[in-house]
Amino acid sequence: MSINQQIKPLTTANTPNLSIGGCDLVDLAKKYGTPLYIVDEQSLRGICREYRNAFNDYKNIRMTYASKALSNLAISKILIEENFGFDTVSAGEIYTVYKAGADMSKITFNGNNKSADELEFALDMKVGRFSVDNFYEAELLNDLAAKKGVVADILLRVTPGIECHTHDYIKTGQIDSKFGFDLSQTDEIVNLVINKYKNLSLKGLHAHIGSQIFENQSFKDEIEILVKELSRINQTFGLDLNEINIGGGLGVKYTEEDAPPSVEEFGAAVIEALKTSCEKHNLEYPIVYIEPGRSIISTAGVTLYTVGSSKQVPNGTKYIAVDGGMADNTRPITYQAKYYAEIVNPAENRVDEIVTVAGKYCESGDILIENIKLPAPQEGDILCVFNTGAYNYSMCSNYNRSKKPAMVLVNNSQSDIIVNRESLEDLIRLEEIPDRLRK
Amino acid sequence: MSINQQIKPLTTANTPNLSIGGCDLVDLAKKYGTPLYIVDEQSLRGICREYRNAFNDYKNIRMTYASKALSNLAISKILIEENFGFDTVSAGEIYTVYKAGADMSKITFNGNNKSADELEFALDMKVGRFSVDNFYEAELLNDLAAKKGVVADILLRVTPGIECHTHDYIKTGQIDSKFGFDLSQTDEIVNLVINKYKNLSLKGLHAHIGSQIFENQSFKDEIEILVKELSRINQTFGLDLNEINIGGGLGVKYTEEDAPPSVEEFGAAVIEALKTSCEKHNLEYPIVYIEPGRSIISTAGVTLYTVGSSKQVPNGTKYIAVDGGMADNTRPITYQAKYYAEIVNPAENRVDEIVTVAGKYCESGDILIENIKLPAPQEGDILCVFNTGAYNYSMCSNYNRSKKPAMVLVNNSQSDIIVNRESLEDLIRLEEIPDRLRK
Repeated sequence: MSINQQIKPLTTANTPNLSIGGCDLVDLAKKYGTPLYIVDEQSLRGICREYRNAFNDYKNIRMTYASKALSNLAISKILIEENFGFDTVSAGEIYTVYKAGADMSKITFNGNNKSADELEFALDMKVGRFSVDNFYEAELLNDLAAKKGVVADILLRVTPGIECHTHDYIKTGQIDSKFGFDLSQTDEIVNLVINKYKNLSLKGLHAHIGSQIFENQSFKDEIEILVKELSRINQTFGLDLNEINIGGGLGVKYTEEDAPPSVEEFGAAVIEALKTSCEKHNLEYPIVYIEPGRSIISTAGVTLYTVGSSKQVPNGTKYIAVDGGMADNTRPITYQAKYYAEIVNPAENRVDEIVTVAGKYCESGDILIENIKLPAPQEGDILCVFNTGAYNYSMCSNYNRSKKPAMVLVNNSQSDIIVNRESLEDLIRLEEIPDRLRK
Repeated sequence: MSINQQIKPLTTANTPNLSIGGCDLVDLAKKYGTPLYIVDEQSLRGICREYRNAFNDYKNIRMTYASKALSNLAISKILIEENFGFDTVSAGEIYTVYKAGADMSKITFNGNNKSADELEFALDMKVGRFSVDNFYEAELLNDLAAKKGVVADILLRVTPGIECHTHDYIKTGQIDSKFGFDLSQTDEIVNLVINKYKNLSLKGLHAHIGSQIFENQSFKDEIEILVKELSRINQTFGLDLNEINIGGGLGVKYTEEDAPPSVEEFGAAVIEALKTSCEKHNLEYPIVYIEPGRSIISTAGVTLYTVGSSKQVPNGTKYIAVDGGMADNTRPITYQAKYYAEIVNPAENRVDEIVTVAGKYCESGDILIENIKLPAPQEGDILCVFNTGAYNYSMCSNYNRSKKPAMVLVNNSQSDIIVNRESLEDLIRLEEIPDRLRK
């Protein structure tokens, strides 16, 4: 079973407290406080290996971790060691992987509205590929590259007419999306790039069809469209472009209801589709970029909370409240995302209850998990919410002036801080009271 | 017309660029960069004055600004000058108003799961009122106060069976909420507080029925329930409690579709309900806390963005993208919130277009405003989104590793930084790479 098909990190064990990476979770909560983000290094490295194995038979693969899922120095360092490049979407992400020591030629820069400052920064940082999203960006990037006397290697982001989330996907000639060129616009932009924008060097096409995808068929359909379009462009313009970036999107298992394909199945489907489509459209096997984010980091991450107050609505819901919520995990309130959780300390001789796990934020919508069965949670219990590696820390806010949690990397019974907890002083660090208010 | 009934700040003018507080918004964008939060001091002070005037005839009113709407040093300082106390919900908020110089006796501390650390901090800070939310908190706070040899003045947070958002409200015997005591539980907690918890001093009741409320009737119904319950408690236990906190919730006008009552109408409705209910239930006019947040700060705030790329879906949506989005304003993606916007620089001789304003974040849901009529937006235009004072900065994240925007206070043609823009260095400031990864 692939790591993305599991709810819990690889190294999860009962000792008798729940432990991850050989570290007792009650001890971690005590040592570092809660809420606490934890990343299991073995799960992270394990799925990187799975991706490499899945594409062992396709030499021209380029793995780029979608760092928007979770970006910081230590995580970037591990991905670098695992031979991944990075899909970045801002100067901040580029800066982070640079500081972690990434080979900048393995960086792609995506986004529907990269600013001039960001494009300049990316040029200076020598990122490997710019995924040009629109006509404005093509002109802007060309101007900036010309000023610097460099040539930017680009892919064209296109909307292949497929949009996919979980089980459902739609295929249509055209998607109403803010991203990329419509397929009816590719001739115009290719013409501009090869004839007018002398500081852009076109390498191929890029697409991204969605997130938390459970159906490999949608990737196959995407590849068919990209290969067909690349082949058509090559014939039309007499080119030999040979790169496609198929984006990310492979799903993970947040709860028992989720059934994502394995990384191996994903890889096999992609390779099969490449073979079929390339033969059909007479294209040499291209260099293929993939941009997994969630599937790389989600399962490796968990969040620890301390249980505090509870409330039994007479004849109604039993709420238990934890010391975090929508500021450290905004996915339930934003996407109605579902999570699984367990009490970390031994809870024998307790009767199971159906409870709703509420956050501590002053908002009735701040509910982390509705109706989960837990052994009669009590004040002081440590609750572990699983599969929080992706889009938790990265979307974390200071709502209610809360301090952002710390993050700890665990492996071989060792735990190391990789993000320090914010302090009260951090909250006001950038603030000023103008002199005229100080009268 | 009340300030909360207006989409734009009081001082908005065409000069010919749009200006606020006498400051040309194009100049502000140039000077401070975009995205940029702006707060109009006159609008903020103006609505504070409106609240004071609206309750001029009710001496026992206590205005507490719900600082979760927007909390920082300078905003707190202005509210202090305007004689407001603060409704706080975390150690971070308490710390902020303390550093701004607040009279801590005017601070209330709310929340469904205050931690022991936070309660201790609040006791040390001598906050005026603890709104005790549940049985667990009552015991915990009593223990902590006893240890310190102090007595905490408390209100009991109750769920009055009313829940209200915009036009709709429901009234029922019982609300399924994570907050507060059910009315069937008040006798039990009052009994505990007066007979067992010697370090708690009960002053009255607290409730909060919702947000962005357009119907004063819901406040009247709430007051009737609180007064009736307080009177009943007084009779049952032989007490003379005389404080009620009716919470916040008065709405604002985000778009033309919104029709909130004026502050004056709100005040009149509250006072009328107090008179009616107090007479009916034979209660002396109590001390009344109100907790306006959104209605105080929303209209005073705007956000400036620079327009970047655009995309015309063939025969479909025209997207224009700005240099911010869901990280600086999460309300559209989280609550489907609607906003109004204008182009700040003169745009004469342009044809109006219906466009969708997209953010720059790598997520198809990152759309700020759907289908708004604007004069053919062009790259480099400065877009002003109105009514962003509340729950924008306070819910702001670093998603996509973006730098949090700066905030500027404007008044009498003067602009002052009150929150500095984050830097790339800020993004990694708290991060570490463990030695064992540095081999």
